[in-house]
Amino acid sequence: MIERVRVAVVGVGNNTSALVQGLALYRQSGSLVGIRRPMIGGLGVDDIDVVAAFATSEEKIGRDLAEAIFLPPNNFPRLNCDLPSAGVPVTRGLVDATEVERVAAALAGAEVLLYSAPSGRPETARAYAEAARGAGVAFINTTSDPVARDPHMLSSFEAAGLPLLGDDLASQFGTSVVHNALLRLLAERGLTLVSSYQVNLGGTEDFRNLVDNPNTKKQSKLNALTEGHPADRPASDQPAVDRPASDRPASDRPASDRPASDRPASDRPAAGRVEMAPLGYLPHLRSQKVAHLNIEAQGWGGTAVSLDVKLKVDDPSGAAGVNIDLIRIAASALRDGRGGYSAEATSLFKSPPGTAV
Amino acid sequence: MIERVRVAVVGVGNNTSALVQGLALYRQSGSLVGIRRPMIGGLGVDDIDVVAAFATSEEKIGRDLAEAIFLPPNNFPRLNCDLPSAGVPVTRGLVDATEVERVAAALAGAEVLLYSAPSGRPETARAYAEAARGAGVAFINTTSDPVARDPHMLSSFEAAGLPLLGDDLASQFGTSVVHNALLRLLAERGLTLVSSYQVNLGGTEDFRNLVDNPNTKKQSKLNALTEGHPADRPASDQPAVDRPASDRPASDRPASDRPASDRPASDRPAAGRVEMAPLGYLPHLRSQKVAHLNIEAQGWGGTAVSLDVKLKVDDPSGAAGVNIDLIRIAASALRDGRGGYSAEATSLFKSPPGTAV
Amino acid sequence: MIERVRVAVVGVGNNTSALVQGLALYRQSGSLVGIRRPMIGGLGVDDIDVVAAFATSEEKIGRDLAEAIFLPPNNFPRLNCDLPSAGVPVTRGLVDATEVERVAAALAGAEVLLYSAPSGRPETARAYAEAARGAGVAFINTTSDPVARDPHMLSSFEAAGLPLLGDDLASQFGTSVVHNALLRLLAERGLTLVSSYQVNLGGTEDFRNLVDNPNTKKQSKLNALTEGHPADRPASDQPAVDRPASDRPASDRPASDRPASDRPASDRPAAGRVEMAPLGYLPHLRSQKVAHLNIEAQGWGGTAVSLDVKLKVDDPSGAAGVNIDLIRIAASALRDGRGGYSAEATSLFKSPPGTAV
Amino acid sequence: MIERVRVAVVGVGNNTSALVQGLALYRQSGSLVGIRRPMIGGLGVDDIDVVAAFATSEEKIGRDLAEAIFLPPNNFPRLNCDLPSAGVPVTRGLVDATEVERVAAALAGAEVLLYSAPSGRPETARAYAEAARGAGVAFINTTSDPVARDPHMLSSFEAAGLPLLGDDLASQFGTSVVHNALLRLLAERGLTLVSSYQVNLGGTEDFRNLVDNPNTKKQSKLNALTEGHPADRPASDQPAVDRPASDRPASDRPASDRPASDRPASDRPAAGRVEMAPLGYLPHLRSQKVAHLNIEAQGWGGTAVSLDVKLKVDDPSGAAGVNIDLIRIAASALRDGRGGYSAEATSLFKSPPGTAV
Repeated sequence: MIERVRVAVVGVGNNTSALVQGLALYRQSGSLVGIRRPMIGGLGVDDIDVVAAFATSEEKIGRDLAEAIFLPPNNFPRLNCDLPSAGVPVTRGLVDATEVERVAAALAGAEVLLYSAPSGRPETARAYAEAARGAGVAFINTTSDPVARDPHMLSSFEAAGLPLLGDDLASQFGTSVVHNALLRLLAERGLTLVSSYQVNLGGTEDFRNLVDNPNTKKQSKLNALTEGHPADRPASDQPAVDRPASDRPASDRPASDRPASDRPASDRPAAGRVEMAPLGYLPHLRSQKVAHLNIEAQGWGGTAVSLDVKLKVDDPSGAAGVNIDLIRIAASALRDGRGGYSAEATSLFKSPPGTAV
Repeated sequence: MIERVRVAVVGVGNNTSALVQGLALYRQSGSLVGIRRPMIGGLGVDDIDVVAAFATSEEKIGRDLAEAIFLPPNNFPRLNCDLPSAGVPVTRGLVDATEVERVAAALAGAEVLLYSAPSGRPETARAYAEAARGAGVAFINTTSDPVARDPHMLSSFEAAGLPLLGDDLASQFGTSVVHNALLRLLAERGLTLVSSYQVNLGGTEDFRNLVDNPNTKKQSKLNALTEGHPADRPASDQPAVDRPASDRPASDRPASDRPASDRPASDRPAAGRVEMAPLGYLPHLRSQKVAHLNIEAQGWGGTAVSLDVKLKVDDPSGAAGVNIDLIRIAASALRDGRGGYSAEATSLFKSPPGTAV
Repeated sequence: MIERVRVAVVGVGNNTSALVQGLALYRQSGSLVGIRRPMIGGLGVDDIDVVAAFATSEEKIGRDLAEAIFLPPNNFPRLNCDLPSAGVPVTRGLVDATEVERVAAALAGAEVLLYSAPSGRPETARAYAEAARGAGVAFINTTSDPVARDPHMLSSFEAAGLPLLGDDLASQFGTSVVHNALLRLLAERGLTLVSSYQVNLGGTEDFRNLVDNPNTKKQSKLNALTEGHPADRPASDQPAVDRPASDRPASDRPASDRPASDRPASDRPAAGRVEMAPLGYLPHLRSQKVAHLNIEAQGWGGTAVSLDVKLKVDDPSGAAGVNIDLIRIAASALRDGRGGYSAEATSLFKSPPGTAV
Repeated sequence: MIERVRVAVVGVGNNTSALVQGLALYRQSGSLVGIRRPMIGGLGVDDIDVVAAFATSEEKIGRDLAEAIFLPPNNFPRLNCDLPSAGVPVTRGLVDATEVERVAAALAGAEVLLYSAPSGRPETARAYAEAARGAGVAFINTTSDPVARDPHMLSSFEAAGLPLLGDDLASQFGTSVVHNALLRLLAERGLTLVSSYQVNLGGTEDFRNLVDNPNTKKQSKLNALTEGHPADRPASDQPAVDRPASDRPASDRPASDRPASDRPASDRPAAGRVEMAPLGYLPHLRSQKVAHLNIEAQGWGGTAVSLDVKLKVDDPSGAAGVNIDLIRIAASALRDGRGGYSAEATSLFKSPPGTAV
């Protein structure tokens, strides 16, 4: 019988709630609903235990993980399963880099550290990565902060024979997955794109933070990003204090998502344009995300083709459905002694190693 | 300079109207809007001339092709281009097989015969194919009647060094293209399909024939077909008198489109089901087709994912946008002496050689 | 304390399931969710008891009502409430008019008979009405069969001092309610209707019967009805054996819903047209109904206005939400000695007295 | 024959473009498409002449009105009609109150002054009103700035026997018209609202100004307004420099549109909530506005009812379709000597006299 994977998580938000509840549900039901890969490296969905959790919220610290995941502002629903006490009290998270050793000590016994905190605190992300490396633990960075695509960091994990996966989790089935699939289909079939828009609405803290953000310039830049933080990325786990990731250069973003003024003039003004409406924070949606997409195109003889799509998903489920694969990829690589990045994780990240920081 | 392709067409319905008008529009505008492949075998979109046309409607016979394409029940719109007299009077089409020689004679000077009549008259389709072979002309069968997937017919074209392409044109961007792309995406991302439906509405003769068809059994079988005649196939050019194609065995159809009673029982009743609503004939839509698609699925932990799509296309444009490629593939093969089927046409047909008759 | 209303029901289908379960739920929860009128004539939602039920299905006869409502083909969901044994075994329903006296005897103790069988059996409907009159019981006809709008029948109830309410229940919130509200709004604001369509999809027996009906002519006429049996009327309770209601003259139907060929020619072909797609039977929808509506109009200077609507409702709930008011209107009138029709029921029926038979 | 109405306009933006072009189109075509009231006080749609126009843009001043309406940032389309030179050069508009007399002099010969500048400059609005009063001209205020609901201003027009209509034009067929009609219908039918949202997207200057507005607080307050500037109001005519209208007290707004925190707590958290997503500026939409509405409700037994709506309209047409009625109401009242407010204008404004300033 295979040894169970011991995972530690940073961040006790909606994504962790979805992960912890789903692990219990799959173990109890034996179901494989919504599972992309039943087995990875011999590891099934129910071969995973969460053995440690870090958070910064005073309300969550010290509480059993099975209780802490339901504390506000978390609003992922209760899944239909028993959730006994986890026996895992939430540990105080890193506040500054002096605490790397304390965290490393707390990781004893873990094989994988899943970093599932909010994006926008690159130093914190790197500190946790260093703690993992120090403790001989594989590291997964789901945020957009550069960790796996930092060549120095990656080399150090390779040298230590430890897996390092990241950056910026791609949701299992989000707005950009659907939008890109349809735009690609259009192109493959030879139609000419006239215009397209995307509206993203949600009710999580992550949506609220972006909409309330007093720094309009930063917000508009965030909004303009293709990856659509958080439109195209599962909501991160805690309120972001700072989001320097939004300051990355425009050249790092696909042309179609830059504001019109950034783009070269074209003889047909709407050619190739995909426009993003600002994110909408609608509290009643709770952890669900709703997207409205429109695509207007031209076919033979310039005749009109139009596509309207409404997509409704549960945002934290879109993260957990990918995290379950990443955890097993990381554990499997660790056990095989394959350090550094695993190619099979590439399609699960927006910014894998080699992309711009 | 390349020699222009000389094409004859069977059927002077909406699809031929779209083709003839589009050829004029692209020649005048130099545009490539909606064109999948600008060049095929050195042939551009404006390197094609229609040199003969066959129809059975008394109103159309003898009229110049540039006028005949606007006669009722055709309802494809006038494109924004000049359409001078074609200098091609519509010829009386085949009524029975004794006329093969007359038709073959009328094909003198043509390189390609595009068979764009309504589906459901397999003998007529084969008679035109024989006329083409006799005249040394390549043949394209856009209907669901078996011609290219008839091994004897295919061998005879191969032996004669003549291209034979078919059967059953796949629209450039139709309901099934979009629906299948989304179902495939869902599966790739690991979601579990719960249910899905498709509604197709249109205003052409083809929609009217199917809805008015007094033979309920046949109609219901037609409706149940995946390819959704005409939901997933551009409307054929003339009213169908008979539609034996609908009698092909159920095993020829994808499992997802068979009525629920055909399918093996499953422990989850809705698993894998795609349901088709009956075709709706809505005259005001004219040559446009509207489809409503719904997909309900489950992701991580069984949480709900739902997708609603409205697609609006011009049906005859979806045929013309593929015919423009088929004509050039056939002409190019003919000129190169490559008889029989061309592999590069495979994705453009629903029933290429090798599929069940 | 007010005396509780004693109701007998004819038909043990989805609509009766919704009524019986809802009565239990409202009594237990004290909730008023979805209730249009909390009190009618001093009667609340939880002042009603079902004391007798008639059905023709051998499986249901003799079973307790609380069990019979869950037998197939019923597919209304289980509501979230306790449903103890009703103490009401299902009684064999009328098969021919010789049994009126048997039924009248079985109505002893009831105040109201709610006729909730399938439409299309006018003789049966009248026989139950006569039984009710004979037993001194108020009668509610929810089917499209003419009972309350039969002047002789109405007079006989008036003479007996017994309420008679009907015909053809208008759903609490169905496709036609929404479609008509939007078309009326358009007209009030001065816009010009260009075209409109309505697609209705459902998974109940009523939808299945209409789609499978081998008599195509009858089906197409049914489909053409405005009231959209069952698109605009909650699904009836049992499979219809016969549907002569569909033979009522076209003059009984609003102009907008007649087939195009019935309508006077207009200089603008699409002017004022509302088109109905055929009903779609999609089993996975079970008792839910989905409608897609489209409205295309013109505003100032002929500029385009378009509206697309998707409506999803539970069909039997739409019936029960109206039946709860009709039962109280009938009981209240009976207790006050007001025989015949009650004006306050008028908006709850499609064909009240005075409309064409 | 009736004397033609002589109208002066303030603002040469999209709304004035729609008005001027539409007047020409209706005169040439004799059509009444999109017209709510063919005759008002004996005045038809083609009995109106624009005789003066004021603007502040240097590019527009001095240009013939028939040219100026097509200058950027105006993006209302060219209607399908001839538009000969208007013979009306655009006049420099008021910059400060010292110019009231100059404007009054320029109004000589006009009967009605239509104030169609951007909202947010209340002093300017009042100065034009005073100029109109001085010149003996009726005044229509389409902006949200308080003019007609200022009791002193209204008294002075009444005393002068001059009509004064306002404030804040209600679009002929906008998002709030449709949303409110559906919410009202829901309530009338007795359903219980669970949640609702509204997304508004547009491509005019007005949308751009609101989205780019650096003052986040103001923007969020604007966004929270029910009237949804400009979601529920036709885009105003020129870029707004200042928008103090957004500072009007919350009590001036319908409860349903206030942020959740403003509303009294309810036992069901989502009860009665209508949430507004932030306005989206999507340049490719030009003068079209797209709205996505969702309504989730509960019917009988708490079963779910859901409505999804996509609405697409031309925003300036929605203003012109109302302005055509206001001009005739004002002219008719002026000619009859009825000064002050006209009751028949009430449904055409969001803030008629008597509402909070």
